[in-house]
Amino acid sequence: MTQTATRPELSVPATVAIQDNDAAVVDVAALGEQLLGRWAASRRTARALAGDPAVHKIEGLSSSEHRARCLEQLHHLVKSKAVHRAFPEELGGSDDHGGNIAGFEELVVADPSLQIKAGVQWGLFGAAVLHLGSEEHHRAWLPGIMNMDIPGCFAMTETGHGSDVASIATTATFDPDADEFVLHTPFRAAWKDYIGNAAQDGRAAVVFAQLITRGVNHGVHAFYVELRDELGNFLNGIGGEDDGLKGGLNGIDNGRLHFTQVRVPRTNLLNRYGNVATDGTYTSPIDSPGRRFFTMLGTLVQGRVSLDGAAVAASKLALKTAIQYSVERRQFTTASELSEEVLLDYQLHQRRLLPRLAATYAASFAHEELLEKFDGVFSGEHDTDEDRQDLETLAAALKPLSTWLALDTLQECREACGGAGFLTENRFTSLRADLDVYTTFEGDNNVLLQLVAKRLLADYAKEFQGVDFGVLARFVVTQAAERTLHRTGLRQVLQSVVDTGSERKSAIALRDERTQHELLCGRVDSMVGELAGALRGARRLPPADAAAVFNQHQQELIQAARAHAELLQWEAFTAALANTLDAGTRQVLTWLRDLFGLCLIEENLSWYLMNGRLSAQRARTLGPYINRLLLKIRPHAVDLVNAFGYGPEHLRAAIATGAEQKRQDEARENARAMRASGHAPVDEKTVILRKAEADKRSQRA
Amino acid sequence: MTQTATRPELSVPATVAIQDNDAAVVDVAALGEQLLGRWAASRRTARALAGDPAVHKIEGLSSSEHRARCLEQLHHLVKSKAVHRAFPEELGGSDDHGGNIAGFEELVVADPSLQIKAGVQWGLFGAAVLHLGSEEHHRAWLPGIMNMDIPGCFAMTETGHGSDVASIATTATFDPDADEFVLHTPFRAAWKDYIGNAAQDGRAAVVFAQLITRGVNHGVHAFYVELRDELGNFLNGIGGEDDGLKGGLNGIDNGRLHFTQVRVPRTNLLNRYGNVATDGTYTSPIDSPGRRFFTMLGTLVQGRVSLDGAAVAASKLALKTAIQYSVERRQFTTASELSEEVLLDYQLHQRRLLPRLAATYAASFAHEELLEKFDGVFSGEHDTDEDRQDLETLAAALKPLSTWLALDTLQECREACGGAGFLTENRFTSLRADLDVYTTFEGDNNVLLQLVAKRLLADYAKEFQGVDFGVLARFVVTQAAERTLHRTGLRQVLQSVVDTGSERKSAIALRDERTQHELLCGRVDSMVGELAGALRGARRLPPADAAAVFNQHQQELIQAARAHAELLQWEAFTAALANTLDAGTRQVLTWLRDLFGLCLIEENLSWYLMNGRLSAQRARTLGPYINRLLLKIRPHAVDLVNAFGYGPEHLRAAIATGAEQKRQDEARENARAMRASGHAPVDEKTVILRKAEADKRSQRA
Repeated sequence: MTQTATRPELSVPATVAIQDNDAAVVDVAALGEQLLGRWAASRRTARALAGDPAVHKIEGLSSSEHRARCLEQLHHLVKSKAVHRAFPEELGGSDDHGGNIAGFEELVVADPSLQIKAGVQWGLFGAAVLHLGSEEHHRAWLPGIMNMDIPGCFAMTETGHGSDVASIATTATFDPDADEFVLHTPFRAAWKDYIGNAAQDGRAAVVFAQLITRGVNHGVHAFYVELRDELGNFLNGIGGEDDGLKGGLNGIDNGRLHFTQVRVPRTNLLNRYGNVATDGTYTSPIDSPGRRFFTMLGTLVQGRVSLDGAAVAASKLALKTAIQYSVERRQFTTASELSEEVLLDYQLHQRRLLPRLAATYAASFAHEELLEKFDGVFSGEHDTDEDRQDLETLAAALKPLSTWLALDTLQECREACGGAGFLTENRFTSLRADLDVYTTFEGDNNVLLQLVAKRLLADYAKEFQGVDFGVLARFVVTQAAERTLHRTGLRQVLQSVVDTGSERKSAIALRDERTQHELLCGRVDSMVGELAGALRGARRLPPADAAAVFNQHQQELIQAARAHAELLQWEAFTAALANTLDAGTRQVLTWLRDLFGLCLIEENLSWYLMNGRLSAQRARTLGPYINRLLLKIRPHAVDLVNAFGYGPEHLRAAIATGAEQKRQDEARENARAMRASGHAPVDEKTVILRKAEADKRSQRA
Repeated sequence: MTQTATRPELSVPATVAIQDNDAAVVDVAALGEQLLGRWAASRRTARALAGDPAVHKIEGLSSSEHRARCLEQLHHLVKSKAVHRAFPEELGGSDDHGGNIAGFEELVVADPSLQIKAGVQWGLFGAAVLHLGSEEHHRAWLPGIMNMDIPGCFAMTETGHGSDVASIATTATFDPDADEFVLHTPFRAAWKDYIGNAAQDGRAAVVFAQLITRGVNHGVHAFYVELRDELGNFLNGIGGEDDGLKGGLNGIDNGRLHFTQVRVPRTNLLNRYGNVATDGTYTSPIDSPGRRFFTMLGTLVQGRVSLDGAAVAASKLALKTAIQYSVERRQFTTASELSEEVLLDYQLHQRRLLPRLAATYAASFAHEELLEKFDGVFSGEHDTDEDRQDLETLAAALKPLSTWLALDTLQECREACGGAGFLTENRFTSLRADLDVYTTFEGDNNVLLQLVAKRLLADYAKEFQGVDFGVLARFVVTQAAERTLHRTGLRQVLQSVVDTGSERKSAIALRDERTQHELLCGRVDSMVGELAGALRGARRLPPADAAAVFNQHQQELIQAARAHAELLQWEAFTAALANTLDAGTRQVLTWLRDLFGLCLIEENLSWYLMNGRLSAQRARTLGPYINRLLLKIRPHAVDLVNAFGYGPEHLRAAIATGAEQKRQDEARENARAMRASGHAPVDEKTVILRKAEADKRSQRA
């Protein structure tokens, strides 16, 4: 069932100008509104809050000062009513899931530590009680969680197991005589680790452990466990340590926890998806242990969704600062003796910043779609198993791309601003350090992409639905094992290649939307088909051999998943164009979308060549075409970053304040005056001329 | 004169095993000795020093504590006689330039702040007095500089001008009546900026300024200027401010300086390459202002050389830690129910770490060659203009690659170690933050690569020797303008393509050394040839148009320079193989060299395909071939990082201590016991089975 390669022929005359409306102008306000999206009101409120100095990161604090400040800021968020949108109305929330995430992710611009600490309290700890607990649990604990009377932890990860949650080793054994669960940490690797709020502030925790009753292990369940007394001392049987300094996010007190025969009431089991009766009988509304496990873990998805959004916001901040600076900063004279070039007029600088700007737009539009999907599921409007699985896969596809993009963009912007970029006052290095861990927490990016690959294979052929080659995360395998084949979402994407491929064999330009779509789709389709072919036989092999076969294709699996995720971003960008009403804005955004698509093709050009999708001759036109696109986008770069809507209170970067422009103007004025007085200080040619004159004079003398 | 593309045909049967000595064993001690290189003794001494806790970075210090500690450590270095090797024997040094750098760069493993602060004091400030001053200057100031009585600054960069040094705007105007120079900062952009030791510790500085005498600006010269009194207060007319926090290197007090009509004695001009007599007459042993400028700047090259070496050392540390952890850490079961896989057995993990290991070896061997070249020039043994220019170009080629490699390697290692990688105790994030700025200081990497490109063009055709398209850094252009065409060094590389290309048209395997060389050389040659063709006409255009043409090819210029630098690394690696006497070690290193070469070809595969150097069919064998190489290198990975020779006192990473192995052993033992007792806590299949049994039981009941 390997797909036949489609071969769209492309013709891009290398020297002919692009036939577009070169006079296009961006309507910055309208584009800004479009970027704010469906939850614009939430975002506006959150941005107003995030602009308040009370929640800003103060650089250079010691980690204990920073921790204390973040803790206080959490109380500030409560007072500002900024963090209760997702909770039930009867408890003072507003049952608004999309709006909650939209607002929450904007907090990253104030201080990523604050964002993540808030995420631990309300998005993980609180959400676990909300989604895994009963109404009784809600009444007992949610008010205290919401108002910060109970700062808490989400104690899932162990030192020995991060992404492989099913393998955690903490146990919760039911003791029917006492009507209690006994939580226990059997060995060092089973300590809970990297747990936010654990080192200091956590009064309670939702602890994930293997539930054992009547001698049967029913798998991972969540328990509400009190950790510390009023004075902040660990309760009996509980111990822990501080994770210490981290590469970033030092406003959060991450730490380790362990439990020695710690007893909690039976009713502290968050029992929505699994309950134990007084006699130790286990019951669950979900028969399959695998499906139960992933339903319980489903609450985690909102973490990934919000990291995706926060990463996009960080990229936007970085690009606004770097692009603003790049149109003020001048280096090296070219044509004129007096005036040096602004950085963004250099091809290299355009190549460094504009493709990342395009990718950030793509990630932003894709994130809005993810948020829609998330809201649909969590509001209950579109909450089938399939919807949940689509949401999981979409989040797993987009979060790796956006978090890696943020690090890459922050670093490129930092380097593009030279020494100034390295100063903390310009925030690139600080944001980069804080966002670093976004690539591996709430699901390691590479593990998430393998989950996506597994889903692509399962959608491709029924055969792969229940496959267990072992090398793929148990996480991935088990999830896929429980789902039914369907044709929504991802499958549609693959389908569309077949639909359009046969019709479009004639020569079309790379700028053509359908050509880009065909090339990007075709790659995903073909990679998945090839992988399916290579892995098909493995199922019948003994486990060790099957694992080896899978391992031999691990990199290709990840590449296929990545290609798929990029396609989703491209499609989201393209869909957004249809919603861009102003013609000039749509024109510029279309160039930007083309830049995004063509850069993806350029990055993977060897694949297109090896697989006969592009001829060598056509491929050679791609680079020059991209360079011409850069020139077209260049005049709109400032408008495009202004549309992100972040003000000086969000940017807080010394080089984004116009200070450079002022310095340049002053320097130029001075150089002009010096030149007018016949005394240019910085011109090499003048030096040579004057040297020659002086030599002549001295010879004459 | 465009070169005809050579087309080596390659045949790598995708399924045939590599015919090598699979039983090869690495002689770790001998390889370690080879890596220590010619200046092994210096490196050993420096490593012993760097292992001393007195010079270690303490994480979490405030920047003022860190600054104070680094300052004290500089005194410690003086006492340890660690930093005077490059100074003249008569002043207590040993005139050992290569050994000085070899030892100096090892300091990075203690604390990069310490390394760079020492570099500012002795490698920049001291070296400027040494290389630009007279013997009188040496006697006056070097003793105090060497023993830290005079902590000082190297005040070259200005806020307005970083890489474009010729354009700095600070002036030093000679006043013959007072026999003094008047140093002056005309406007804000001319403040000296990012200057190490300027915010706090600097008592004096070598200040670079436009020398003006008798109304003529003779270009940039260096002046010895006292900055602060005994109490640390600025002297009259001098002001400045603190650069504040930075993304890293916070042990160094970078700051800004400005001068308001500051008077220094005429004899404070460091006058080796340009002097002013009491009557204001300017004389210089070097007629050409351009050549004079670059001779004076030549002292800067040792900064680049040592950054190259320090970056390689940082990559080695990161790889040792990450690879050690990757053979202890287990995640996800595959074949066995009991035992999870160690990370390095996953293809993805091999793909992440081993190519970077190969690149680090290549960079290490290339650095040793750079050090040889440097020592030849600075010792006077090989000190022609051509030698100096070759040295400049080689440093400009290698420093960008190794500093980017270090950041990339540190980040990949950090992510490959998951949450543990983010903890400061494992040092990846700390080293990465400190090394970040290595990519833009002592010459921005992209500016340096343009310098290399300019040289490649000049070597390619006489026509490009004096070319001034403007867009290229004035720095670059002027340097090339002053040199004569020669056929040493870089040119030889290009030549060799022509030599071997015609002979080797038959099918040869990718593993063949000559094939790799041919492919890598061919790419450089062809890119330079194409660029020369594209730029040839530009010279006759008006400046603005010529600049535009150059700008259109800026990215290609940088790519060509990068390809050239990578080729130099590959050649250095290959040359090292000839010096590897132990057959087993040579075998493993040869695989590693092949991995380096083939990964370079893979990264640029689209170029090889577009230019007909590889057929699509051959290209498709490359990925699988690389994967098989990874499997061959995998068993030797630990030996290869052990050969770097860094001990626990240098690594200082919690996860490189064997702690993970201990945890894994304990967890496995426990799991075995649990399983033996019929009570496995972590096995999903068992859960399902037991659930079924329990269901049966309850049905029976």
